[in-house]
Amino acid sequence: MAIEINPIGSMDLLSQLEVDKLKQSSNKALYKLYRNCSLAVLNVGSHTDNSDEIYNQFKDFDINVVRRERGVKLRLINPPEHAFVDGELIIGIQELLFDVLRDILYTGVRTTELGIINLSDSTHITHYVFDILRNAGALQTHKDPNMIVCWGGHSIREHEYQYTKDVGYQLGLRGLNICTGCGPGAMKGPMKGATIGHLKQRVKHGRYLGLTEPSIIAAEPPNPIVNELVILPDIEKRLEAFLRVSHGIIIFPGGAGTAEELLYLLGIMLNKENSTQCLPIVLTGPAESAEYFREIDNFIKATLGAKATSLYKIIVGDPAGVAKYMKDSMVEVRANRKLSGDAYHFNWSLKIEHNFQQPFEPTHDNVAALDLHLNQSTAELAANLRRTFSAIVAGNVKAEGIEQIKKHGPFKINGDKNLMSRIDKLLQAYVEQGRMKLPGTKYEPCYQIVQD
Amino acid sequence: MAIEINPIGSMDLLSQLEVDKLKQSSNKALYKLYRNCSLAVLNVGSHTDNSDEIYNQFKDFDINVVRRERGVKLRLINPPEHAFVDGELIIGIQELLFDVLRDILYTGVRTTELGIINLSDSTHITHYVFDILRNAGALQTHKDPNMIVCWGGHSIREHEYQYTKDVGYQLGLRGLNICTGCGPGAMKGPMKGATIGHLKQRVKHGRYLGLTEPSIIAAEPPNPIVNELVILPDIEKRLEAFLRVSHGIIIFPGGAGTAEELLYLLGIMLNKENSTQCLPIVLTGPAESAEYFREIDNFIKATLGAKATSLYKIIVGDPAGVAKYMKDSMVEVRANRKLSGDAYHFNWSLKIEHNFQQPFEPTHDNVAALDLHLNQSTAELAANLRRTFSAIVAGNVKAEGIEQIKKHGPFKINGDKNLMSRIDKLLQAYVEQGRMKLPGTKYEPCYQIVQD
Amino acid sequence: MAIEINPIGSMDLLSQLEVDKLKQSSNKALYKLYRNCSLAVLNVGSHTDNSDEIYNQFKDFDINVVRRERGVKLRLINPPEHAFVDGELIIGIQELLFDVLRDILYTGVRTTELGIINLSDSTHITHYVFDILRNAGALQTHKDPNMIVCWGGHSIREHEYQYTKDVGYQLGLRGLNICTGCGPGAMKGPMKGATIGHLKQRVKHGRYLGLTEPSIIAAEPPNPIVNELVILPDIEKRLEAFLRVSHGIIIFPGGAGTAEELLYLLGIMLNKENSTQCLPIVLTGPAESAEYFREIDNFIKATLGAKATSLYKIIVGDPAGVAKYMKDSMVEVRANRKLSGDAYHFNWSLKIEHNFQQPFEPTHDNVAALDLHLNQSTAELAANLRRTFSAIVAGNVKAEGIEQIKKHGPFKINGDKNLMSRIDKLLQAYVEQGRMKLPGTKYEPCYQIVQD
Amino acid sequence: MAIEINPIGSMDLLSQLEVDKLKQSSNKALYKLYRNCSLAVLNVGSHTDNSDEIYNQFKDFDINVVRRERGVKLRLINPPEHAFVDGELIIGIQELLFDVLRDILYTGVRTTELGIINLSDSTHITHYVFDILRNAGALQTHKDPNMIVCWGGHSIREHEYQYTKDVGYQLGLRGLNICTGCGPGAMKGPMKGATIGHLKQRVKHGRYLGLTEPSIIAAEPPNPIVNELVILPDIEKRLEAFLRVSHGIIIFPGGAGTAEELLYLLGIMLNKENSTQCLPIVLTGPAESAEYFREIDNFIKATLGAKATSLYKIIVGDPAGVAKYMKDSMVEVRANRKLSGDAYHFNWSLKIEHNFQQPFEPTHDNVAALDLHLNQSTAELAANLRRTFSAIVAGNVKAEGIEQIKKHGPFKINGDKNLMSRIDKLLQAYVEQGRMKLPGTKYEPCYQIVQD
Repeated sequence: MAIEINPIGSMDLLSQLEVDKLKQSSNKALYKLYRNCSLAVLNVGSHTDNSDEIYNQFKDFDINVVRRERGVKLRLINPPEHAFVDGELIIGIQELLFDVLRDILYTGVRTTELGIINLSDSTHITHYVFDILRNAGALQTHKDPNMIVCWGGHSIREHEYQYTKDVGYQLGLRGLNICTGCGPGAMKGPMKGATIGHLKQRVKHGRYLGLTEPSIIAAEPPNPIVNELVILPDIEKRLEAFLRVSHGIIIFPGGAGTAEELLYLLGIMLNKENSTQCLPIVLTGPAESAEYFREIDNFIKATLGAKATSLYKIIVGDPAGVAKYMKDSMVEVRANRKLSGDAYHFNWSLKIEHNFQQPFEPTHDNVAALDLHLNQSTAELAANLRRTFSAIVAGNVKAEGIEQIKKHGPFKINGDKNLMSRIDKLLQAYVEQGRMKLPGTKYEPCYQIVQD
Repeated sequence: MAIEINPIGSMDLLSQLEVDKLKQSSNKALYKLYRNCSLAVLNVGSHTDNSDEIYNQFKDFDINVVRRERGVKLRLINPPEHAFVDGELIIGIQELLFDVLRDILYTGVRTTELGIINLSDSTHITHYVFDILRNAGALQTHKDPNMIVCWGGHSIREHEYQYTKDVGYQLGLRGLNICTGCGPGAMKGPMKGATIGHLKQRVKHGRYLGLTEPSIIAAEPPNPIVNELVILPDIEKRLEAFLRVSHGIIIFPGGAGTAEELLYLLGIMLNKENSTQCLPIVLTGPAESAEYFREIDNFIKATLGAKATSLYKIIVGDPAGVAKYMKDSMVEVRANRKLSGDAYHFNWSLKIEHNFQQPFEPTHDNVAALDLHLNQSTAELAANLRRTFSAIVAGNVKAEGIEQIKKHGPFKINGDKNLMSRIDKLLQAYVEQGRMKLPGTKYEPCYQIVQD
Repeated sequence: MAIEINPIGSMDLLSQLEVDKLKQSSNKALYKLYRNCSLAVLNVGSHTDNSDEIYNQFKDFDINVVRRERGVKLRLINPPEHAFVDGELIIGIQELLFDVLRDILYTGVRTTELGIINLSDSTHITHYVFDILRNAGALQTHKDPNMIVCWGGHSIREHEYQYTKDVGYQLGLRGLNICTGCGPGAMKGPMKGATIGHLKQRVKHGRYLGLTEPSIIAAEPPNPIVNELVILPDIEKRLEAFLRVSHGIIIFPGGAGTAEELLYLLGIMLNKENSTQCLPIVLTGPAESAEYFREIDNFIKATLGAKATSLYKIIVGDPAGVAKYMKDSMVEVRANRKLSGDAYHFNWSLKIEHNFQQPFEPTHDNVAALDLHLNQSTAELAANLRRTFSAIVAGNVKAEGIEQIKKHGPFKINGDKNLMSRIDKLLQAYVEQGRMKLPGTKYEPCYQIVQD
Repeated sequence: MAIEINPIGSMDLLSQLEVDKLKQSSNKALYKLYRNCSLAVLNVGSHTDNSDEIYNQFKDFDINVVRRERGVKLRLINPPEHAFVDGELIIGIQELLFDVLRDILYTGVRTTELGIINLSDSTHITHYVFDILRNAGALQTHKDPNMIVCWGGHSIREHEYQYTKDVGYQLGLRGLNICTGCGPGAMKGPMKGATIGHLKQRVKHGRYLGLTEPSIIAAEPPNPIVNELVILPDIEKRLEAFLRVSHGIIIFPGGAGTAEELLYLLGIMLNKENSTQCLPIVLTGPAESAEYFREIDNFIKATLGAKATSLYKIIVGDPAGVAKYMKDSMVEVRANRKLSGDAYHFNWSLKIEHNFQQPFEPTHDNVAALDLHLNQSTAELAANLRRTFSAIVAGNVKAEGIEQIKKHGPFKINGDKNLMSRIDKLLQAYVEQGRMKLPGTKYEPCYQIVQD
């Protein structure tokens, strides 16, 4: 079965030269990545977070870039049936497919030729993140601050999921928009909730912005509720994108990925140059998660200090309270941006050090070499802790990471004795609470704590 | 606590003369009705279908029409708190409140003065229904047929509710709009489902049209998802409105109210003058409801004949199938309207006999006098059966009906022996299946079958 | 040649009952008026202001209201060719035709049935004016004050016409909208100018509101630039409509009609109850018209006093100055309305005495009976002077008035000796300046000054 | 006097890196060009076509690119006063200023970095033209063919100008859009006329697309009616842009520039590969221009043959006829594009040979070297004739050309004797008809015919 589809959005205006280049790039190394991301988008609604499984299930799926006199078309071969209604592709999925084409192939084509991106220059990386968001139409001027980034686990329990929906509903009732990593769980709940809130408040143009990256997209495929999808090239640019577009950040219970995000965020906010930044941060979950947040809070205090814990607020079991706090904070965010002359749609003045922008490749050697001792600045320590949890996420759900673990066994994590035992305790709790993998699968740890 | 709110929609352009008249009418008999309907709209999300309970709970609630130089305002005294977000009324509810003002007071004012409505003239009644719908902005020209009316119980079981959501989702995925009686259960499920379907297909202006009437609005308050609300003066005009705006009708499992709607519908479609009408009708529910529909089908065949059963299609456990059938039928509906030169937004050519337009007052005398024998035309018989079930609905959930029953005991229903036993059997099944009242309340029958 | 056209705007939603009534009314006395107004709209671009000539030229023109299952259609028989482009009616004219249907026939149908309009009650008349404007969609809420009413002659000289365009252009550059009587000359110039100003400022929804009345519409047919047309029932309601929708008034050179408008305006603004009103009034024309305005100013001072002349500002030869003054004044108008709680779209608090609302029938007896002495209040005197000039306009260009003059000779105007000579002088100047009729026609005075 | 203005449109989303590069480029060679184009846009409404005069009049004008945290601003120093209304820049001009920034500086920045444009490759040049149009938002998908390119003199007589307005009006009445070179005369008339036509037909989004290039923009500054402005890098890319976006071409009377455009057009349409192209071409003017077109027709027949004259249609004194022919032709254009699978918004399949894409530098040497003999293909001959007239335009109105002539005297044009005399005759006629310069200036020929 093959079907051809027309472009929607920015991709409906390509020159013949560009289409030729797209065709060429899809014949090369990039192609596999492109195919897999497209499949992830088409495979929405599946109930596994194992990329391998997904790819194996649709081995005969293929996607071709086709050149027509008037522009580009996509040819889908054996696409998953549930992406279609009476033989026609769901329009939301059609949009997402062309978002993938844009961000995987077209951005690549443009970047290669642009040749100006100097990845050792912090300003260039920020420009690159900006350029990708702009090209995706995700930067809207003339809007007051209202974009709330929601982080949290893709594998959470039913009552936790319901709680993320409740928070989203309350945010939506207050006219706030949602940005998440666009997978299931805590990334889907707030969006679903917000749609109902927006509907009741007659908000016509609610935004459900999904920021993802190639290595995570299959495990956490964007739901078609996502009406703006951007695929950043790697996890660090995705994190930078989250921070630069956000006007507030909510962190729900999650596993290693959520811990990674929190450590990244704290590491940056601890930077002295960011001391005048205004960014409300809330850690929240249902009443039952009080203990969970107490543990995290203790971990942060013990490792990064009280200054770090003062950067966020913990609110338990109060969706309306969370939303009200965010809504009230938007006034300050606006005033702060106005004062610094900064844009509302992109936080230019936030300082992100180069070491936070650099991709961390989770190989066994790199993990083993991480400096996990206390004799460094809290910002540096946060950066290294962030990398540690990043590696664990890779080993848990990313195709490449899983392969590494298969080949070389679990990552070895070592460092300060006290620190190691705290990390161990936190990770054990995650395993016990089933936060490392989707329910129904037994978790095989991909790491091993080794003390100095 | 008192709060003043500004008009939205059609009511933001009133003359001072009109506001004065509104103020006057709200001082009179009509006022109690107006207050109660407003309360019902504000009380969205409550979990009772007993009007009395609701009215008792908010005894100190009041609403005043206020005249300002520039027009009208509403003053709410002690309104239910959950209609507000951080002290501001939810906009969807604000809209609905002014819909109530428009349809209860303003339509009344206009009609009294108009003085042209001759309720003994069928054409006038139809004009009246049209005028109310037009005034509410519920008639949209230049749109292809796509309005699916969904009927079914307000008290249905969880899996049945889920099924109505699934059907709504599939209808939404096909770009179809939803019209219901706008209470809970089968009236809310299809709308909720459709919102997600519309979202995925990027349908920007999905319509969720609620048609209600004063005596039912408290028991079945409109959910704020309803983005167009029209309150027709009585149950017969509401039924006529349903039929004239619909391009297809879906009937989910329900109780006496649903049976009433089905009998009304069949009585009209059996009229010879309607033999060229094109109106797809589907009876549907989850797999478990197969038996339920078999019973209804048998009842119809036994009382109204095979011609009646040929007017609808029973589809069990197949939401996509139902939606696809409706979507496919829209082509024929369009062709049929085009052929007859009729409008898409209002079915002028459908013949509704005057006896179907006349309100039936469910007093004990009127119920006892109903002709429930087989020696009449099927259309006549359908009309009388419809009235029978209408009385039972009144006795179950309507304020006035409940009062009647309290005073005089259950309605006495009598007629042909065979017919009586069939009715008895159907109603017993409804009681056993808990379709007469919301769960958690014990059902006290408001009727008694008396054979000739 | 016959052609059928579909409704646009509010008339595309009529019930069958309403269409029947429309058909009936078009069979009666009202029909001739309806036909003539329709012809005037179709005959746009003609170069005569003699109604008789127009009606004679298109004797075989006819228009029928046609009932279709889905609503109303219009059937045009032998319409003027220049209303069509390649056989299709210009859409702007199609809109205007249905505006005529709405305001001549439909408003009539509604009013008759409404039966509430008590024309001896000032509040009712204002409601009636409001209702007609609302029904025509000419009242827009949520817009800041920006509607400038422009009055002036339909027969003006080329450099005067150019000046009205220049003023319109400058108003348009400042985002202001235009309302005129919608004929040629000073009623068309400001609109044409404003379209270019709006275009340059990227104003997307510029309003060109035309207010007319049946007896003047043929002599001053609405140009299709008019994108909102309202036909008020008579000259007094048209004048009231002008005042209630205006946020500022500009008076260009003109003849008797313009004098009538100015006297009406001053008579109302002199009312003590209007002393807190904020309504900027400018008399303006090209440099050459300095003398013209000096004469008017003297006439006003001599008859109504210095208080009257303080109500307006004379600006000569400075289009940008006029527009800037209006733009600056809008801030005060807004503040004034806010203070009094009045609407921006309709000036409810302006007091218009009943004698200014009463139609004046320009018969020979009524003209002769006018009290034109100085021993009355300035407001009363203004009202009577206004009627005097109204009669002259009728005798000049209105079908009925022309007929009266044909039959009984010129109107006899008599009163205070001094006043008579002032009126005589003013009218003589108008005749000499060619302001009484379109160029190319010799003016035969329709009046005769008779001193006490 | 200095004023800072904010970006509108595509330039309101620039990264800090981009703004830095803009600032840098505005410090370099490009700066003078940028300043001059900006001045031309601000100087709208002036009555000279001499660039030098304009630049001399505003010697103290300057423009700076300013970097703000949130993006770019422009700082205007001593800008022409008439671009402002009450101290605020007219929005249409503000848009055009940022169009200049985009097309002069930003496109330059992008292109340099892109580094992919290979100007010896025809496909690359077409991509470049496409990219500039796309970046300017001038390519709109999902619209039926309706873009009529109008060519003609910037210096034409009053009755000719009126005729171009009449044609524009008739095109506007038929819903067609206008694209011109955006100067005065035949480039402004059709746009002005079309605005009124669009207004009458209630066309909300009429397009007035101006295509210009740096060397002509001062002499022919864009009127603010132009609501889409694109500055192509040179005359050849501008000509290619005209052809690729057009669905029909109208040529009004003009001078050397118009002859150049016609020869370019014929040269391309004579290419065998374009034999299946569908592009209606009309030469038109008022009745008095019949002789003018006869001369051109004879010149074409004599030089390029009957096949060339069959490519266009001459219609004299019939604006409605011209517009009707264009409107009717749109059906065929649409069918033709559909058949070839080509886009409506950009004619990809039109073959433009590389020699038509190459800029011709009008130096004395290059002009002298032109092959103007008959022993070459008609397409080649058309190309060389085109270059000849291009040089004359440069010598007449372009800053650089005028300087060349000042220094080295008139261009020497030589070639086939017969051809020379025909060119001579045509140019003499232009001089006599005052088509070479704006009225009021005496024409000093910038060329000299030299026969072999």
